[in-house]
Amino acid sequence: MPYALSKFRIIDLTHMLTGPFATKMLADFGADVIKVERPGTGDDSRAVGPFVNGESMYFAEQNRNKRSIILDLKTKEGKENLLMLVSKADVFVENFRPGVTEKLGLGYETLKKTNPSLIYASCTGFGPEGPMAGQPAYDATIQAISGAMGITGKANGAYSIIGIPAISASAALMLNMGILAALLERERSGRGQKISVSMYDSAAAVLENSMVRYFNFGIVAKPLGNSNAAAFPFSSFHAADADLVIATTSEASWVKLCETLEHTELTEDPRFLTTEKRAENWGELEPLLNSILGKKKLAEWIKILRENNVVCGTINTMKQLADDPQVQDRQMVSDMEHPVAGKVKVIGMPVKFSRTPCEIYRSAPLSGEHTEEILSSL
Amino acid sequence: MPYALSKFRIIDLTHMLTGPFATKMLADFGADVIKVERPGTGDDSRAVGPFVNGESMYFAEQNRNKRSIILDLKTKEGKENLLMLVSKADVFVENFRPGVTEKLGLGYETLKKTNPSLIYASCTGFGPEGPMAGQPAYDATIQAISGAMGITGKANGAYSIIGIPAISASAALMLNMGILAALLERERSGRGQKISVSMYDSAAAVLENSMVRYFNFGIVAKPLGNSNAAAFPFSSFHAADADLVIATTSEASWVKLCETLEHTELTEDPRFLTTEKRAENWGELEPLLNSILGKKKLAEWIKILRENNVVCGTINTMKQLADDPQVQDRQMVSDMEHPVAGKVKVIGMPVKFSRTPCEIYRSAPLSGEHTEEILSSL
Repeated sequence: MPYALSKFRIIDLTHMLTGPFATKMLADFGADVIKVERPGTGDDSRAVGPFVNGESMYFAEQNRNKRSIILDLKTKEGKENLLMLVSKADVFVENFRPGVTEKLGLGYETLKKTNPSLIYASCTGFGPEGPMAGQPAYDATIQAISGAMGITGKANGAYSIIGIPAISASAALMLNMGILAALLERERSGRGQKISVSMYDSAAAVLENSMVRYFNFGIVAKPLGNSNAAAFPFSSFHAADADLVIATTSEASWVKLCETLEHTELTEDPRFLTTEKRAENWGELEPLLNSILGKKKLAEWIKILRENNVVCGTINTMKQLADDPQVQDRQMVSDMEHPVAGKVKVIGMPVKFSRTPCEIYRSAPLSGEHTEEILSSL
Repeated sequence: MPYALSKFRIIDLTHMLTGPFATKMLADFGADVIKVERPGTGDDSRAVGPFVNGESMYFAEQNRNKRSIILDLKTKEGKENLLMLVSKADVFVENFRPGVTEKLGLGYETLKKTNPSLIYASCTGFGPEGPMAGQPAYDATIQAISGAMGITGKANGAYSIIGIPAISASAALMLNMGILAALLERERSGRGQKISVSMYDSAAAVLENSMVRYFNFGIVAKPLGNSNAAAFPFSSFHAADADLVIATTSEASWVKLCETLEHTELTEDPRFLTTEKRAENWGELEPLLNSILGKKKLAEWIKILRENNVVCGTINTMKQLADDPQVQDRQMVSDMEHPVAGKVKVIGMPVKFSRTPCEIYRSAPLSGEHTEEILSSL
């Protein structure tokens, strides 16, 4: 058993981002993920760019380490083959809208008759109940509806789309946690179950302190510009030549910052004595800190701040990230040999196992690349 | 076994957000999470507001369903008690900087002698190797260094802090996936291992298409304002009275949008024929769509768009989220009876298990609330 999940087979009916992102991680952990695609165009994300030799790199990133089988689930034969796959699998994952698998005759109640120990995992926009149950969703619309977008952006109230698919990623990872926890429980009980994760619920879960503040105090979070609602300073500032972020979370780290900036008088300034005071008088503190930080260049400040263990960061681009030796040392860029696109690069694995390490052991599949191989093994 | 993880005991040395967010989810799944706090102030996040009767609701949210024990790990007795706990545990989790547990005499090599089947999980800012290994980090600084902040914000290049702790949440969920996968592997091998997750690596993993574009094409992603890099339209627009987000990801969904807006001439406009064309001519398409959408009010558009299965969303506040019947129906707000703060509200669980559902079965603990109970059980 070379990988953590080598023992497990997953039948993957997901498409686009959230579902495939989840099953990619399970495949990276070594599970045998069989991606079921429809005849013709297959997963819609095969049409999302960028492309190399006509192959979607968007698709390739989210589907490496998986195998692909084409099944027409609207035919009797396709359905029978799917049920055969399910009978020999541990997990079934889908991210259709609620009711779709039932309509296909492949809902949980049907599949569990075929395989009572199956973990059936469903990821939807809003979950199978409630007034929004049937609505489709993508990361950006859930960012909007959940309020995550509304608290991102300039302090004047102009919201901004979050540049990373934060909601899709969270929902995908929540789904995987549910799948793995259900598999662990099954080791004792021998029984399967259905787990359900929605993007909307996942957004609520990561809204964290903004939700807590509203529930318990009626505080409606606003975009705080380049700051934070609970800690001050926890913001971006201007050095002489470029911007940087400095984060303090306790009185001790505030004092440490003032000492590092060689402005210990700030620690005794009654306007800035506590987090509450610094929040209240942020309009005065922010320009003051900017005037201090504006006196040296970014590189100089970063060196000084790091030497003093002040939590800080430069505001990087993708180029700086990809070229960072830290990213190389952690193997967060991997090569993948693709049958059509050739040698391309994919993102490495963020979970490092000491005894069962992850690797790219298989390219993202062409649509139906493993249909025969899989069918003949049944 | 009422909960999915009832069988498992986790010794939790984490503090602040990322680690506690992770172990909260495991506690929600039913694991016996024993939070080890230092004498005196305990977890630093106990000092982060908002407060009810002097109790941090920030702490309460991230630590419900856990027990707390105070141990002074700098004393022989404290260390012995910790080793005793570890000998009877399945998982040990910490989010100190690399080297800290080793200095305390509690590194993985030591703990695995006490318990060879232990899963040792470490969450750091940058991982245990590489030039940044020793640097501290918070969500905002990793947002900055990873480039996530740089691609969030207005199209003119002004970046913005992401309003949700997207990186902390991702790292926490990655950590849990690693822990659960390692526990599953242990069911077969009987052996423990160390898993390591860094916030920086987790950011890279969720940067997704922005990373892929840079690696394979040298494209350095920029803030796209309220848009998306891969799909057009996938943006916010202005209805007559408020803004909304509309997301299309395929040619079919673009055509559907034009039909719904009753502007099918757009589908034949050579400037907008393909995603690439719409990206290229976005400067013309965006105002055109805004002029169409500006002719009706938000509520009217949402009704029309939903009826036609166009993926869309209003840009909500925390109030709208918390009051949404969908959030209520999915039980994403839960009551918790706190020994000092009284009845408070916490966020519900986004992973729904059909057979082993989650619940709030224990309040967030006072510091050391369970010290005696736990020590006497050893």
